[in-house]
Order: sequence, then C-alpha cells, then structure tokens
Amino acid sequence: METLDPKLDLSFERIVDAPRELIWKAWTTPKHLMPWFCPAPWSVVECEIDLRPGGRFYTVMQSPEGQRFPGDGCYLEVLDNTRLTWTNALLPDFRPLAAIAQTESTVDFKFTATIQLETLGTGTRYIATVRHGDEAACKQHADMGFYEGWGIALDQLIAYTKTM
Amino acid sequence: METLDPKLDLSFERIVDAPRELIWKAWTTPKHLMPWFCPAPWSVVECEIDLRPGGRFYTVMQSPEGQRFPGDGCYLEVLDNTRLTWTNALLPDFRPLAAIAQTESTVDFKFTATIQLETLGTGTRYIATVRHGDEAACKQHADMGFYEGWGIALDQLIAYTKTM
Repeated sequence: METLDPKLDLSFERIVDAPRELIWKAWTTPKHLMPWFCPAPWSVVECEIDLRPGGRFYTVMQSPEGQRFPGDGCYLEVLDNTRLTWTNALLPDFRPLAAIAQTESTVDFKFTATIQLETLGTGTRYIATVRHGDEAACKQHADMGFYEGWGIALDQLIAYTKTM
Repeated sequence: METLDPKLDLSFERIVDAPRELIWKAWTTPKHLMPWFCPAPWSVVECEIDLRPGGRFYTVMQSPEGQRFPGDGCYLEVLDNTRLTWTNALLPDFRPLAAIAQTESTVDFKFTATIQLETLGTGTRYIATVRHGDEAACKQHADMGFYEGWGIALDQLIAYTKTM
C-alpha cells in the first residue's frame, strides 16, 4: 500500500538496543524528548506535544550561540509503540498552511516523517522515513545532513533510554 | 480540542432524514458517491477511494460542456459512520505537494474537510467543516458557492439514499 520513491524520500533502518516502549515514550513526551532530540551542542529549548492525529508537534532547537530554530506541524498517525507520523505541511487540526507561509518554522520545505518500531528480541527495529513533495526538497533535506543528524539523535535517544 | 476560526473556516450543520450508515456508505464508495457528489447538471466521471488515513481520495467532476475538474488528496481521519476527514494539501501516503504545484487538481487553494455524523432518532445530524490556511482561501471557497454547492450535493445525497 505504501510507496517510497528514491528520488523523493529519505529512509534508514537500524536495530537498536532499547525496548520500543521506551523509544516511543522518548518520542512522545516533551520531558523525554528534549534531552536527545537534536545533536549536541544544540539543544531543544521548547517542546509541545498533543499526541493525537491533528494534534500539535512543536519544537524549538537552539544553537550554542542562542539562535532559535522552531519547527511546527501536526501528527497524522499515532499507533502506540508502533508508528508515529507527523508533517510540517499541516498545522494543528490538519489546517493547511497559509499560501504565503507565515509560520515560525525554520525549514522552508515540506516533509512528512514516520518512525516505525518493531520488537526484535530485547531490542527494536527502528525505521525512519521522510517523504517530500519534490526532488529539490529531498536534496535540501539530505544536504542539511539528514542521515547524520537523525543518526546522532538516535544514538542520543538510545543512550538516554538507559537513564529513563 | 478542536478549534474553528470564523475568518478561516466554513461550516454548516443539518438534520437529515437518512441513517448515518447509508450516508457514510455514500461518502466512502465510488459507486455510491458518483451519483450525488456534485450538483447537477455537472457529474462525477471518475472516483478513486482508498479508505484509510493516507489513502487517496480522487474525483473528476465534469461540466455539461465536457470540461474536467479533478480534485486529488488523501484521507486523514476514517472513523466508520462517524467522522471522515481529507485534505488536498497532502497526496497519498501523506506526501507533501511539490513546491511548484504540478497536481492535476483544479482549485489552487488548500483545504481540509471533515464530515461528522451523529444519529438523531431515525435521522442524522450532519456537520460539514472546511478549514483553510488563510482568509483569501476561505473567501475564495465561499465565493465559489461552498454553502450552495455542498447544500445541493447533500440534498442529492439524501435523495440518493432512498434508492440504495
């Protein structure tokens, strides 16, 4: 049913040493998301999560120099411990963006991201997928360091789960 | 939780003489949607429904002169007999639109629409809501005859349910 397009989509899969319930919790509660969500020395200084389809997912990342990088959007799929999808192409309650974008969001391209979790022994198969609307957006996201950034964040997430 | 904004949203409610199960069926199966979905003498000549969050909702309306007006998008909420939400701001699998819109869709503004159904005696409370990203889109939709068009289509839907 689902389709991936190598020209438009970025995706990676890793087997990680943490139960998926903890990974889910780390993705879906501000208190447990802020410690790992962006690669150090950047940090997450604000986070709002309204965990339902149509609910808000809002974060502000901050550089060591104090520059703020907000991201705003809403959840599309919330399947406990299994599948989390959100987009920056819709605001809360699925509202379309204004034609002349006025959101606080930093990135100017649109994406829809999905985290899938499957139990594998005592660990988890972790699949991250990001869909884009055109090749330019996909390339921009890749050039921003998508694989490196999400990979480092995942390392931080797994390390954090040991402290939860 | 949900918010409506009178500057951005269009909404109407009607009590209709049809059980909500038939209304749901008429909204969610091509065979039962095509007969009523657009005000006569226009007609629906193509319809594709993949009834799941992220699934495609595609229609082509045709004028009596043969001009085609396609609409493309995906479902966001599918709650049987209760609530159906879709948007033209995302393509199937929640893919964002290209920055330079290349879709076949006719309308150039984005909207997210919800149909809510509640049983009321032998009939149904029918609530239609359409959210937009800015006042210009909302006004354009209203000026296109949203209330009249959706009202006539609803009359056609109810008449059609008598024949189902």
